[in-house]
Amino acid sequence: MTDKHLSTQFDAELSEISNRVLEMGGLVESQVAQAVYALTNFSGETASLVLDRELRVNQMEVEIDRDLSAIIARRQPTARDLRLLIAISKTIGNLERIGDEATRIARTVQRLMNSGVSSRLRLPVADIAFGANLATAQLRKVLDAFARLDVNRALEVLKQDDEIDKEFDGLLRKLITYMMEDPRTISSSIDLVFVAKAIERVGDHAKNLSEQIIYIVKGTDVRHHTVEAVEDAVR
Amino acid sequence: MTDKHLSTQFDAELSEISNRVLEMGGLVESQVAQAVYALTNFSGETASLVLDRELRVNQMEVEIDRDLSAIIARRQPTARDLRLLIAISKTIGNLERIGDEATRIARTVQRLMNSGVSSRLRLPVADIAFGANLATAQLRKVLDAFARLDVNRALEVLKQDDEIDKEFDGLLRKLITYMMEDPRTISSSIDLVFVAKAIERVGDHAKNLSEQIIYIVKGTDVRHHTVEAVEDAVR
Repeated sequence: MTDKHLSTQFDAELSEISNRVLEMGGLVESQVAQAVYALTNFSGETASLVLDRELRVNQMEVEIDRDLSAIIARRQPTARDLRLLIAISKTIGNLERIGDEATRIARTVQRLMNSGVSSRLRLPVADIAFGANLATAQLRKVLDAFARLDVNRALEVLKQDDEIDKEFDGLLRKLITYMMEDPRTISSSIDLVFVAKAIERVGDHAKNLSEQIIYIVKGTDVRHHTVEAVEDAVR
Repeated sequence: MTDKHLSTQFDAELSEISNRVLEMGGLVESQVAQAVYALTNFSGETASLVLDRELRVNQMEVEIDRDLSAIIARRQPTARDLRLLIAISKTIGNLERIGDEATRIARTVQRLMNSGVSSRLRLPVADIAFGANLATAQLRKVLDAFARLDVNRALEVLKQDDEIDKEFDGLLRKLITYMMEDPRTISSSIDLVFVAKAIERVGDHAKNLSEQIIYIVKGTDVRHHTVEAVEDAVR
């Protein structure tokens, strides 16, 4: 077996594992979308779908991590290949946490439905859907950036995270006003506060995923950098 | 240079990096303790100390991660050594997130103080301190377990996470009652809801750290397992 042959096999392994990361990403993306659908439509059935998928997402995390270790031990990669494998390990950790946030939203929907509060909560639910659409768009964009290892697209996601944070702050103020006007809604509104927080976290994780893409391609660890410093690293 | 010599050098590297993980752990442990002290004593000065340390914690995460990659590329470890290095990578990610939670609490203290709400919030603050002490004790215990690679101690931490979750649920109910009785406290109480959530997360991260210790020593990935299944893996 020649070195070239070995290297081609290795490339195939890297590409196979990257595809599984994208598959896992698609799964959690649909979990988030379904969780938000379940909330805005008070659909217990859709909430159950999200919870059903949690097991598969967790399983994928464990399987991909196990295979990453096996590849590192067998192939002893260096430079960019090693960076890719280490970044994948962090990436799937982030994806699993996005799945957790979707699961939290789905459980909240079930609890809200069990306490029968649908009609009273119409207004903030629509606002949450707006923030959730921003977060889902960020997630889709960063998965797309991962698929093409496109640092410019990753940088866009990083720069847009502020918008989700602002949306969250506005939503929180709205929920507080809502509770003050009608204290009977406090308990349900607190549930929505946590949903809003979960969506903000999805945005944060999308940002973390962007940083991993930049690390793979550029070799620079841009975590904890200002946006300006990340732009310098990318250009 | 003999193989034995090389191996001794490698052992020294592993031990040096483990010590830095413990140093980082000590730093975030004191951040959490200080954040809780700042809250219970309304000390803006202590809150500032927590924020000052954030930079150093972030820096340690980046430095340790960089050195981990360099060690993997140079030493090409397998089996337990590779597991240790991969687990350390996840461990420092968790420690950094614990530092983030402490930072969130410290920022909330500053905001509460700026809005001048100290006296009215006495009751729930004491309850939060109780939950926070549980979480800090868990964190101390798991760092101790990491230092000795003690799986039984790690297992204890894992089993005790339920207590923090119960504490959080009780605290949330108390805060909701509090808001209903006096809607003027809603805004500040929401701040305390997030503080309580941050403390619950510290507990979650301590649990994650336990799972990494079990992975290093036993080679079994026990994430997403039931407590019973983890006990089987450890014994």
